[in-house]
Amino acid sequence: MSSTFGHAFRIHTYGESHGGAVGVIIDGCPPRIPINREIIQAALDRRRPGQSDIVTPRKEADEAEILSGIQDGVTLGTPIAISVKNTDQRPGAYDEMAAKYRPSHADYTYDAKYGIRALSGGGRASARETIGRVAAAAIALQVLKQQYPALEILAWVKSIQHLVADVDPATVTAADIEGNIVRTGDPVMAPAMIDHIKAIRSEGNSVGGVIECVIRNCPAGLGEPIFDKLEADLAKAMLSIPATKGFEIGSGFAGTQLTGREHNDPFVMENGRVRTASNRSGGIQGGISNGEDIFFRIAFKPTATIMTNQQTVTSEGENTELQGKGRHDACVLPRAVPIVEAMATLVLVDHLLRQRTLHAPTAE
Amino acid sequence: MSSTFGHAFRIHTYGESHGGAVGVIIDGCPPRIPINREIIQAALDRRRPGQSDIVTPRKEADEAEILSGIQDGVTLGTPIAISVKNTDQRPGAYDEMAAKYRPSHADYTYDAKYGIRALSGGGRASARETIGRVAAAAIALQVLKQQYPALEILAWVKSIQHLVADVDPATVTAADIEGNIVRTGDPVMAPAMIDHIKAIRSEGNSVGGVIECVIRNCPAGLGEPIFDKLEADLAKAMLSIPATKGFEIGSGFAGTQLTGREHNDPFVMENGRVRTASNRSGGIQGGISNGEDIFFRIAFKPTATIMTNQQTVTSEGENTELQGKGRHDACVLPRAVPIVEAMATLVLVDHLLRQRTLHAPTAE
Amino acid sequence: MSSTFGHAFRIHTYGESHGGAVGVIIDGCPPRIPINREIIQAALDRRRPGQSDIVTPRKEADEAEILSGIQDGVTLGTPIAISVKNTDQRPGAYDEMAAKYRPSHADYTYDAKYGIRALSGGGRASARETIGRVAAAAIALQVLKQQYPALEILAWVKSIQHLVADVDPATVTAADIEGNIVRTGDPVMAPAMIDHIKAIRSEGNSVGGVIECVIRNCPAGLGEPIFDKLEADLAKAMLSIPATKGFEIGSGFAGTQLTGREHNDPFVMENGRVRTASNRSGGIQGGISNGEDIFFRIAFKPTATIMTNQQTVTSEGENTELQGKGRHDACVLPRAVPIVEAMATLVLVDHLLRQRTLHAPTAE
Amino acid sequence: MSSTFGHAFRIHTYGESHGGAVGVIIDGCPPRIPINREIIQAALDRRRPGQSDIVTPRKEADEAEILSGIQDGVTLGTPIAISVKNTDQRPGAYDEMAAKYRPSHADYTYDAKYGIRALSGGGRASARETIGRVAAAAIALQVLKQQYPALEILAWVKSIQHLVADVDPATVTAADIEGNIVRTGDPVMAPAMIDHIKAIRSEGNSVGGVIECVIRNCPAGLGEPIFDKLEADLAKAMLSIPATKGFEIGSGFAGTQLTGREHNDPFVMENGRVRTASNRSGGIQGGISNGEDIFFRIAFKPTATIMTNQQTVTSEGENTELQGKGRHDACVLPRAVPIVEAMATLVLVDHLLRQRTLHAPTAE
Repeated sequence: MSSTFGHAFRIHTYGESHGGAVGVIIDGCPPRIPINREIIQAALDRRRPGQSDIVTPRKEADEAEILSGIQDGVTLGTPIAISVKNTDQRPGAYDEMAAKYRPSHADYTYDAKYGIRALSGGGRASARETIGRVAAAAIALQVLKQQYPALEILAWVKSIQHLVADVDPATVTAADIEGNIVRTGDPVMAPAMIDHIKAIRSEGNSVGGVIECVIRNCPAGLGEPIFDKLEADLAKAMLSIPATKGFEIGSGFAGTQLTGREHNDPFVMENGRVRTASNRSGGIQGGISNGEDIFFRIAFKPTATIMTNQQTVTSEGENTELQGKGRHDACVLPRAVPIVEAMATLVLVDHLLRQRTLHAPTAE
Repeated sequence: MSSTFGHAFRIHTYGESHGGAVGVIIDGCPPRIPINREIIQAALDRRRPGQSDIVTPRKEADEAEILSGIQDGVTLGTPIAISVKNTDQRPGAYDEMAAKYRPSHADYTYDAKYGIRALSGGGRASARETIGRVAAAAIALQVLKQQYPALEILAWVKSIQHLVADVDPATVTAADIEGNIVRTGDPVMAPAMIDHIKAIRSEGNSVGGVIECVIRNCPAGLGEPIFDKLEADLAKAMLSIPATKGFEIGSGFAGTQLTGREHNDPFVMENGRVRTASNRSGGIQGGISNGEDIFFRIAFKPTATIMTNQQTVTSEGENTELQGKGRHDACVLPRAVPIVEAMATLVLVDHLLRQRTLHAPTAE
Repeated sequence: MSSTFGHAFRIHTYGESHGGAVGVIIDGCPPRIPINREIIQAALDRRRPGQSDIVTPRKEADEAEILSGIQDGVTLGTPIAISVKNTDQRPGAYDEMAAKYRPSHADYTYDAKYGIRALSGGGRASARETIGRVAAAAIALQVLKQQYPALEILAWVKSIQHLVADVDPATVTAADIEGNIVRTGDPVMAPAMIDHIKAIRSEGNSVGGVIECVIRNCPAGLGEPIFDKLEADLAKAMLSIPATKGFEIGSGFAGTQLTGREHNDPFVMENGRVRTASNRSGGIQGGISNGEDIFFRIAFKPTATIMTNQQTVTSEGENTELQGKGRHDACVLPRAVPIVEAMATLVLVDHLLRQRTLHAPTAE
Repeated sequence: MSSTFGHAFRIHTYGESHGGAVGVIIDGCPPRIPINREIIQAALDRRRPGQSDIVTPRKEADEAEILSGIQDGVTLGTPIAISVKNTDQRPGAYDEMAAKYRPSHADYTYDAKYGIRALSGGGRASARETIGRVAAAAIALQVLKQQYPALEILAWVKSIQHLVADVDPATVTAADIEGNIVRTGDPVMAPAMIDHIKAIRSEGNSVGGVIECVIRNCPAGLGEPIFDKLEADLAKAMLSIPATKGFEIGSGFAGTQLTGREHNDPFVMENGRVRTASNRSGGIQGGISNGEDIFFRIAFKPTATIMTNQQTVTSEGENTELQGKGRHDACVLPRAVPIVEAMATLVLVDHLLRQRTLHAPTAE
C-alpha cells in the first residue's frame, strides 16, 4: 500500500512538498512508551535542509506538531499524528516544471500514472515526504529500546563518488558520525568529501555515493522466513528512499567472488551464546537475525537537480530545454543518513512486534 | 506477512521440504485467463533439480496438481490452489542436521525465532518453497500478457564468481538463455561457466554469482510512489529469494561514480512517445515505470552446503564439527534464473492490478 | 488494523476528543476526482454537535482543513489529509472521569487493554473520531458517482425506542430525511420522535433506536465471496460505529420466520436485465450485489451518558458513585444518520475499486 | 481480501465444491502448539453432511490431510496447509444449474462479477468452503487455550423458525448442545425442532432460525478501538457465513426499547476484579472485551435450495422455470453451529495475537 509501511507498527505518510503540510500517522505503537516533542524534533533537525553549508540552503524549520496519541509524555496506544507545516513555499521558483519534465525526476511518471501531478515542487516525490518517516522512527526507536536497551542503529556516508571512507561498523559511534557535516565515520576522509561536494556544487553539478548502516545488539529471531525476510524488508525500505539504486547486505556483491568454503560463517559458542566466527551473512540467515551485527550498504545516485541546461520534453509532447536554476542539494547523502537509520528502525520495530505474536507472555 | 506476497494479486505459499507437499494459493487472479497445467508444469520444470548435469541430481518430478480456481482451461476468479507432493523424501541423509547447526544455513535462526524447527531437510528454508512462486508466476504472466501482449521478462546468469557474461539486455532472447544449461545469455562464456561449476563441484566447494533481469515493453505508470515503489518491491522480491545478498537497478552501485550531468536521462520525443535518450534510471523514476527497459541485477552468495568438514555448534550449545556429505547444488544460479523471473512477474502483476483501481474503465 | 478501513480505498483516522485535532488520511483515492472543501464541510456539518435543539449543545465548528492530495479542486491520486482542530476543549467538565469508570463507556476497557487512557473526554472512543470517516466518505461518494452517477446512499431514523417510522426504502428522498431534525423519512412520525427525545432529555435519560439505510442503483457484481462479502463488510462497518448493537440486511431476523418457499427471490427478466421479483435478499446474494436495492438496519443502544448518579468503580478498584453532569446527546441517532451513510459509502467505494482489478480495461 | 481472514493469525481458504479439493493455509500460528489430525478431524466431523437424519444425506467423509506446518504433533510456526479431497462429486445432478440461475443462490451474482462461474455445484459459494475455516479454528482454539485455559466458545440453535429454545448462555454446556442432533441447548425444545425440520423437509421446503453463541472467560482487553472493534469483527465473521442475514450482540435490537438508565451496566468490584452488575453490553465496551461473557445471535435465512419448481431466468436471459430436485439441507442450523464457533474462535485468536504486540514480554 503506497503510503503505508509496516504490518504491526504501521506508518501512513501524507503531504506534497508545497501543499499545506506533510506528516504521518503511526498506528500500532505500544502504549506507555516515553516520548516527547523534543525527541521527534531532534530527529527532524538532523534531516532538515539548511543545517550545514553543504546541503540545500532552504530554511524550512520543520516544526513537528503532535496532534494525537501522546499524553503527558507517554504514548496512549492510539494513533499518533504528527504534522509539519510547509512554511517555505516558493512555487514561483518552479514554474517551468509545470510545463517541462525534469530529467531523472518523477514528473513524467506521475503524469503517466495519474494523468495529473502537483505543479509546485516535487509534490509527493519530494524528499520532504521523508519527514514523516523520520518522526515515526524517533518513536519506534523508543519502542525498540524499551525491550532491547543496548540495540543501536547507526548509518554513515561510506563514499562520495570515488572518495571512500574507512569505517569499522563494529566500533563506529554516533559521535564519530555527527562530528563532521558530511556524516561519515572517517574523520580523515571527511574534509576531502566536504571539499568535493562544494566543488561539485560550484560547478552546478551533483554527486552520489554509498551509505552504510549497522544494527548492533539486535536480538536473534527477528525477521520472517519467505517473503518478509529481514533483509528483504530492509531492501524494500532502503529502495523506497528517493535516489537509491542499490542495496547489499553482508558480503553483498563482492561475496559473489568467494567460494562457499571462504564465505560460510562457522558457528562457535561464546560465553554460552551461539555466535559466528565471521559475519559474511551480515547478521541475517534465512531471513532471520542471528544476533550478530547487521550491516548493509545503499547506493544513492547523483542528485537529479543540476544547474545545467538539459534536453527534455514538455507535458504537451514537444522537445525543449530545461534551464538549470533554483535551490538544490549537490549531494543528498549527509541528509539521507538519518533517513536510512529511520527506515532501518521502522523495519526492526515492525518485526519486533510481529515476533511478540508468536510467543505467549511468560506472565500468563 | 510472512508467506504472503502481493496486495491485489496475492500468493500464499506453504510447505516444508520434507513434509507432505509444497504449494501455493493464488488469490485475486482475474477471471477468464487462459491457463492449463502444461504452462505451470513447464515453468516448474525449469526450476526443478536434476534438469542438467550442473545442478543437484535429486530427481524430484515436481508434478503440479491444480486443486481449484481453474475450469476448462480458464481461471474462475476464485483462489487457485496448486500442490506439489514431496516424493523424494530421504530424511536419513540429513540426520546430523537435527543436532548440528549447518553454517550459513537457517537452522540456528529458526530455532532462535520459533524454539523449534523441521528436523528433515531445510524445512521451510529450503528452495523447494519457491515452487509455489514459480507456479503462481506462470499464471501471473498470462494476466500481464492479456493486457500487454508484448511485455517480456527475461533473466540470465550475468556472472559466475569471476566469469562475467557479455549480454545486451535490450536484445537477449529466451532462446539465447535456454540454449545453454547455465542459463547465461552469452554463448561464448557459457562453456567456461559450466566447466567452472563442474570443477568447483568436484572439489566439494560451491560458487555464487550475479543474475541480471530485464523487463521489456512494460507500460509507463506501474509502481506506487513512496513505500511501494516499483524498484522497492522488486528489491524486496529479489532479496526474498534464498541466497541473495544484493540488488541494484539501472546504474546501480556503479552509478555512484558518475556526476548528475553524466547520470541524468534526457527526455526526447520519439514517434509521439516520451522516451529517454539514455536509461541509467533503469526504466523507473520516482518509483513508477517510465516505459523504458527495466533492468536489475541480483547477487547470489555461494551455496552454503559444501562437502567439507566445518566448525559449528549443536542445538544443545556444544562446539562440534559438521561433516560434508549428501546432495548439493554447487551453484544455484542456473535454477535461480526462473525464480528471479517469477518474482519479477509477481511484482509486475500486482502493480498492474493496483493501477487498474485508479481509473474508471468507462472514463478512459 | 485498528484505525484503518478499506483495502483499495483506505482511510486512516486519528485523534482523541480533547487532543490537538482529529482527522483522516485517505490513501488509494483515484486521481482527477472533483472535490472541494465545501463538499467535505457540508458533510461534517450534518454530523456536528449543536446543529439542532435535540442534539448535544456543544458548539464545535468542526472546520475541515485539507492538507494534501487535492489541487485546484481535483484529487491528485496521492494521500488526502484532512484535519479538524479540537476547539471546544473543556477538560474540566470531565475531571471525574480520570478517577471513575463511566458505566457502559470504554474507560475501563481502554485501561484493561493499554494500561493507560486519555483522561479528558472520551479520548479515542469519542464520537469525534467519526469526523474523519465522514470527511473521507464525502470524497468516496464522488468516486462512486464518477462511475455510477445514479447511485444513491440514504439513511434515516427508522425508530426511536418504541416509535417506528413508516418509510419506503425504494422511494424515500434526501429531502424527506433532511426535512426534519430527527432525520426520519416519515413526516408524520417526526414530531412525535422529536418530542420523545426532548422529554427523555429533560429527565436526564437517553434513548436509542434503529437506523435504516438503502443503496439504490448499485451495480451488480460488487462484493467478494467468502470473507469480504458485501454484507459482511457492511456489518463490520456498521458495528464499528459507536453505540451499535446489531445489524440486519434484507429480511434480517424476521426472515427466520419464513420458509424457503416464502423467502426465495424469483428471477425475472425486465427490460433485458436480470431482476428479482421480490427482494428478501436485500440486494446481495453470495456476498455480491445483484443490482437490486441494498437495504439494512442498525440497532443503536441508548446513549451511555445520562444525568443520573450511577454505581461504578474507580480506576484504583474502589466501589463509588458517578454523578450525572455535563453535556450529552440524549439520542445519538439524528447525528448517526450521516455516519451510517458514510460507512456504507466507504464499503462500496472499496469494493468498486477492488472490482476494477478483475477486468482489463481494454478487454471490456 | 476475499479468501483471507485475520491479520496476525491469518487463514486463506480455497476450493470449489466439485473441484479437486477444498482447504486452508494457516499463517501466523505460533510454534509449539500441540495439535494432531484427530483434533482437526473431530471438528470437521461436526460440520460434515450425513452426520444425522436431519441434515443433507451426502456422505462426504471430509478427511483432513495435513500437508505442512506440523511435526510430531506440534506446530512449527510455519504455514499449516490442510486439504480435504472432494470425493462425492456428482456433477450430473446439477446440470440444470449451468443454464438456469437458482433463486436466492449466488449463480447470477458470480456471473455478474466474474463473467464466469463453476458449473458444477455451488462452486466457491458452497458451504464446503467452510471446511477450511473449521479446520483452522480447531488449531486456533489450542492457541487460545494455551494462554487462557478456561476460555470457552459455545454456540447452539436458539430458534428454528417460530420454535425458540430456552438456553442460559452463562451455564449451557457442550454436552447439552451435542446431546441432541439439532444442537440446541434446550432438551425440552429439541424434539419439537427436530420434528419441525423433518416435516418441512418432507414438504420439500426449508426453514431458518437463529444461532446464539457465548464466549466465557475471555480476558479483558481484546479487540481494537475504531474499525476492528471486537463486535465489528465478530459481525463480519458471522455475516461471512453463507445464509446469514443478521447479527446482534448483548442487548441487540431489543436493547433499543430501553432507556439509558435501564440499559447501562453498573461497575462493581468483585473479588478484587472489575465486573459489571448486568451485561447488556454483551461483554464488549468500546470495541474491547471487558471480561464478562460475550454473547451474540446470528439470523440464518431458510435454505435457498427447495424441492419446488421456481420461476427464474437462464444465463442467456430467458425466463424459465427451475425444477426442484437433488439433495438438500432443509435446515442448515445444526451444521452451522460449529461454523459459528469456528468464526468466533478465529476472531478471538487474531485479537489475542494482536494484543501481544502492545506489551513487551515480562521476561525481557
